[in-house]
Amino acid sequence: MVPKVVFGEGCFDQLSTILSSQTKEKAPFIFLVDDVFEGNIAFLNRINLRFNDKLIYISADEEPKTSQVDTLVKDIKTEFTNTPSGIIGIGGGSVMDLAKAVSIMLVNQGSAEQYQGWDLVKNKAVYHVGIPTISGTGAEVSRTTVLTGPVRKLGINSDFTPFDQVILDPDLTKGVSKNQWFFTGMDCFIHCVESLNGTFLNAFSQSYGEKAYDLCMEIFLGDTLSDDEMRAKLMMASWHGGMSIAYSQVGVAHAMSYGLGYVLGTKHGVGNCIVFQFLEEFYNKDVALFKKMVAKHEVEIPQEVCKNLSEEKMETMITVALGMVPLWENALGSNWKDRINRDKLRELYSKM
Amino acid sequence: MVPKVVFGEGCFDQLSTILSSQTKEKAPFIFLVDDVFEGNIAFLNRINLRFNDKLIYISADEEPKTSQVDTLVKDIKTEFTNTPSGIIGIGGGSVMDLAKAVSIMLVNQGSAEQYQGWDLVKNKAVYHVGIPTISGTGAEVSRTTVLTGPVRKLGINSDFTPFDQVILDPDLTKGVSKNQWFFTGMDCFIHCVESLNGTFLNAFSQSYGEKAYDLCMEIFLGDTLSDDEMRAKLMMASWHGGMSIAYSQVGVAHAMSYGLGYVLGTKHGVGNCIVFQFLEEFYNKDVALFKKMVAKHEVEIPQEVCKNLSEEKMETMITVALGMVPLWENALGSNWKDRINRDKLRELYSKM
Repeated sequence: MVPKVVFGEGCFDQLSTILSSQTKEKAPFIFLVDDVFEGNIAFLNRINLRFNDKLIYISADEEPKTSQVDTLVKDIKTEFTNTPSGIIGIGGGSVMDLAKAVSIMLVNQGSAEQYQGWDLVKNKAVYHVGIPTISGTGAEVSRTTVLTGPVRKLGINSDFTPFDQVILDPDLTKGVSKNQWFFTGMDCFIHCVESLNGTFLNAFSQSYGEKAYDLCMEIFLGDTLSDDEMRAKLMMASWHGGMSIAYSQVGVAHAMSYGLGYVLGTKHGVGNCIVFQFLEEFYNKDVALFKKMVAKHEVEIPQEVCKNLSEEKMETMITVALGMVPLWENALGSNWKDRINRDKLRELYSKM
Repeated sequence: MVPKVVFGEGCFDQLSTILSSQTKEKAPFIFLVDDVFEGNIAFLNRINLRFNDKLIYISADEEPKTSQVDTLVKDIKTEFTNTPSGIIGIGGGSVMDLAKAVSIMLVNQGSAEQYQGWDLVKNKAVYHVGIPTISGTGAEVSRTTVLTGPVRKLGINSDFTPFDQVILDPDLTKGVSKNQWFFTGMDCFIHCVESLNGTFLNAFSQSYGEKAYDLCMEIFLGDTLSDDEMRAKLMMASWHGGMSIAYSQVGVAHAMSYGLGYVLGTKHGVGNCIVFQFLEEFYNKDVALFKKMVAKHEVEIPQEVCKNLSEEKMETMITVALGMVPLWENALGSNWKDRINRDKLRELYSKM
């Protein structure tokens, strides 16, 4: 778990103080910042770059890749003799995942793809800080960093992955567009549905999952919250949702969404929504609630994204989804193959 | 926050594996174990003492004292040349607090009483593990260790106080007596009421507090849970309740209960219940729910504990309670002195 957290409107300004205790001589802090903030002078002025600190903009247009991590690590190592004092990720789930992966790969040999899996990391990561600017993925609290590699989309799951420090400032999510707000929020809602309906569930995950689920209901179907309250509560929903899956697992929607992401590059949050609307058979009540949320917020979920898919790509998509064994086991139990096979996945994907 | 947690029935048996990665040469692990387990061979056999490891029984009859911490530290330093590899606390809130305090004081100079307060600890504590065997106090997750010193009852609040590792095994709470189960569970319920009704509340604390509160309602007023579910859920309620106050504060019941504890030695959980029943004026709805819980579980709350109190002791009790300024501020806002003074406290204590 993340050992240190600050929370509150405006707490982003504590960053300099927090970092000052971690400064190592001649070793820079590297800020990985979502490029949505490029040119946002008011915001950038609040990031205090000192000595040889460096800010690198990150595009979140595509899901993070192992090759992207390798390039970032190589660039940092080329520019600086000393291992950085810390890596600070400021952005959404993609930036969070990149910051975690870079902090690991700066002190572990080889390519990031070698560490996709569980507990393969040897050396403690460089000090790293997560500052989410959009809520829902749970990447700020999770023990993984989901990366697309040459052969698979899979996280670096390790004890060294979680951030050393997280700064939860709901004000940072003010500029998020409505679609992004919704799709990323639904990532959290769908996490919770999958965790709470999974066979891996225990009382630990359940308590976190239920709270995040309740908060999502309040935020996306309620009518009483102010904008400030919504932002703060969605930030906490993301946090608790991430905690819930840290101790359990996601399910059908995530397995199929990984397939979409791998073949079409569909962003994770949108992919989940595209898939989830067709999962009545697995999550009946919650798909109905999801559709209510979509209607209430007048969001358009992309349709027919698989319509003109080549046979080869469809096959790849099915293979990627089917490969997510722990997700299927969690969703449907050890006999999951009785309910899910290539034909079944093809039938579902064909609706999307 | 606690960086590492395992959860689940039987997970206590992972302790040896967890400790093996922390072993330092010739440096023992010190197990502080609630003396309720003395003679419980089946349980003690599950604690793997190796080389010069040492088990010390701790009586939880009285609340932990700074002098008790100092004695434990002195004894350990006298017996062992090397600083221990770790301190493992196995028991209720008192043992949790002692384990945290001893791990700090082994590497910080002077007496524990010098560190009562906020952020006074200089050196990182010895590795310490918390294993609760009764649920409700939240001491397994909190950033404090409440100690009775020569001049006051106050915690050592610091970044070094939280456990490095917690093992949450609901099966360990099987032998707890009904009264202890209830009083300690009510510590959690009352935490949550005070946190949720406090002026310091933010969305972080609120989300944890609401979840713990909901779990308490399910456990203490519901009728659907199995014994296994109740134990697991109460363990989680304690966890979330502790998290909630870590980021906010307790209130009237805790302030007055500290007074009782200081003067009469009343155990924290019982003290909270003695006080809470008379706090309708502050927590109306929740005092009514509390009384329902007391009736449903046929628990007897001690009555008239202040009846034969000397004037001197009453004055001390009032002084101690009134000294808990942050608690009053949280409960009643910055103008708390308009509602609480010595006369008011005397009137309330006189009913107890």
